[in-house]
Amino acid sequence: MKALRVDNDGLSLTDIPRPEIEGEALVRVLKSGICNTDLEIVRGYAGFKGTIGHEFVGVVEKADREELVGKRVVGEINAGCGICELCKNGDPRHCLTRTVLGIHGRDGAHAEFLTLPSGNLLEVPGSVSNEEAVFVEPLAAAYGITEQIDIGCETKVAVIGDGKLGLLCAFSLSLKTKNLVLIGKHREKLAHAQKQGRDFGVFMAGDIRKLERRFDVVVEASGSETGFATALDLVRSRGKIVLKSTFHGTPNWEASRVVVDEITIVGSRCGRFQPAIDLLASKEVRVDDLVSEEFDLGDGVKAMNIAANKGVLKVLLNMDKP
Amino acid sequence: MKALRVDNDGLSLTDIPRPEIEGEALVRVLKSGICNTDLEIVRGYAGFKGTIGHEFVGVVEKADREELVGKRVVGEINAGCGICELCKNGDPRHCLTRTVLGIHGRDGAHAEFLTLPSGNLLEVPGSVSNEEAVFVEPLAAAYGITEQIDIGCETKVAVIGDGKLGLLCAFSLSLKTKNLVLIGKHREKLAHAQKQGRDFGVFMAGDIRKLERRFDVVVEASGSETGFATALDLVRSRGKIVLKSTFHGTPNWEASRVVVDEITIVGSRCGRFQPAIDLLASKEVRVDDLVSEEFDLGDGVKAMNIAANKGVLKVLLNMDKP
Repeated sequence: MKALRVDNDGLSLTDIPRPEIEGEALVRVLKSGICNTDLEIVRGYAGFKGTIGHEFVGVVEKADREELVGKRVVGEINAGCGICELCKNGDPRHCLTRTVLGIHGRDGAHAEFLTLPSGNLLEVPGSVSNEEAVFVEPLAAAYGITEQIDIGCETKVAVIGDGKLGLLCAFSLSLKTKNLVLIGKHREKLAHAQKQGRDFGVFMAGDIRKLERRFDVVVEASGSETGFATALDLVRSRGKIVLKSTFHGTPNWEASRVVVDEITIVGSRCGRFQPAIDLLASKEVRVDDLVSEEFDLGDGVKAMNIAANKGVLKVLLNMDKP
Repeated sequence: MKALRVDNDGLSLTDIPRPEIEGEALVRVLKSGICNTDLEIVRGYAGFKGTIGHEFVGVVEKADREELVGKRVVGEINAGCGICELCKNGDPRHCLTRTVLGIHGRDGAHAEFLTLPSGNLLEVPGSVSNEEAVFVEPLAAAYGITEQIDIGCETKVAVIGDGKLGLLCAFSLSLKTKNLVLIGKHREKLAHAQKQGRDFGVFMAGDIRKLERRFDVVVEASGSETGFATALDLVRSRGKIVLKSTFHGTPNWEASRVVVDEITIVGSRCGRFQPAIDLLASKEVRVDDLVSEEFDLGDGVKAMNIAANKGVLKVLLNMDKP
């Protein structure tokens, strides 16, 4: 089968055997989405070698849970050991010996087939299209913030970053609070983000001086090293900064501001899938305008190059061609 | 009166008029303690000019609250506006227009007299000596961690730093958990800290590899830029790092560890005084072995130089000489 892989020579589309892992389900991938983490992996992040990709929708071909076969599914990307305390409590996201689809120790989703433990798979309702289902993973990551911190309808929230992740954070968190603003660097993206009656304000990053120290919660989703400094400018005393972007780097920061103003910084990675599926099924979060382009898997390398361009939103790979 | 002051020419002992602020209490200082923040201020931290010092015990000479006159007191160092939401809720520690004794907009305690709003003053019980009472402010800061995060008797806590603040954190937090270790760079300080049946383990900073990623809570109280990196090494996934030291600097850090392992970083500054007074009165926390030396205020500059030496613990200034 074809797979988009990273090895010592970099990124390439490669022919490899169809995967088979005993005890795991085999999924035929329909579509996958290119995430910034995929781009970071090509640059060396996490030292991963293998098939990249972790956002997908597919059809189950084989599974120990018979009822799954033939079903259209998405899959939680962390596969735990199954026996540690975390796994036994149903949350393998921080299992110390976990593998992570297309990121750590496990081939990923930019391929014709993948395997995952059947317990990781969730059925996609008919009202959610394939294009929408590919967004379950990043939307879960965005909405996962609400698993970690309280956001009520009065909470003042700023989201930094008008890329895919920032937009998903703004779309989903604005369901929780009426006081959200999105801060970005691309006027057209911000204007676009506000369409469809979405209930939040937008600001250009150069124009936020008047917003300083006003926010209870600031979500850093820009993936830029300066994003954290901006977040520190925006958050109030005793407020919270959520770090949402995985990126290589060691940002500088004024430690004394964090201490003196007793700011809390919360690292945030993966969220649960079911709430994200529900948000898409109910159409409370609409993602159709987040797709920039779609390519066949055969053009995967080109698609990755396109996705790396500034201003491009989600690039999808399509495996569902005869 | 004599006062130890920082101006554009640096630190000096100066003769200035006895302070008088309408509506505030006048306190005759008995003893004050030199804090690392005092040393940082001389180096330029916070841009403060004026009388330094914020740890003290004194006797009230004048006050609108008559019952305070003649009483031995300590004083909360943040003086709020009194009318904002925070102040009205009884917590001026983050009032945006606050002054802070000897740190921001208000002359401090290394002087024969100081003023504070009488609402900031708390009486010291007879069972607490002057030497002990000087520790109320830093002990409140250390124990204030328990206002911000839950520490139960099973919580695994590491405290980084065997200076004054680290020791006070270890002494007070080990009352909450039986799983505390103190990590420092001075073998003799660590050994000393463990005396008197204090219930925690000690480790040299070079010898902590086996402790990596084991702790629910790591308190960074070393004031060194490398302390934060050490804290990141020690904290478990989804654990918490408490930043306790105010220091100039912009530490580097591996942002991806914070995001991937969903670590929370909590800035922590001032704590409430009454719990600290109670800990000293009950002798649950003993601080008598934390005093390195004591000088008359007249030798204040020399005392500051001594306090700046590595390995020195608390240096006290004594104003209670005829």
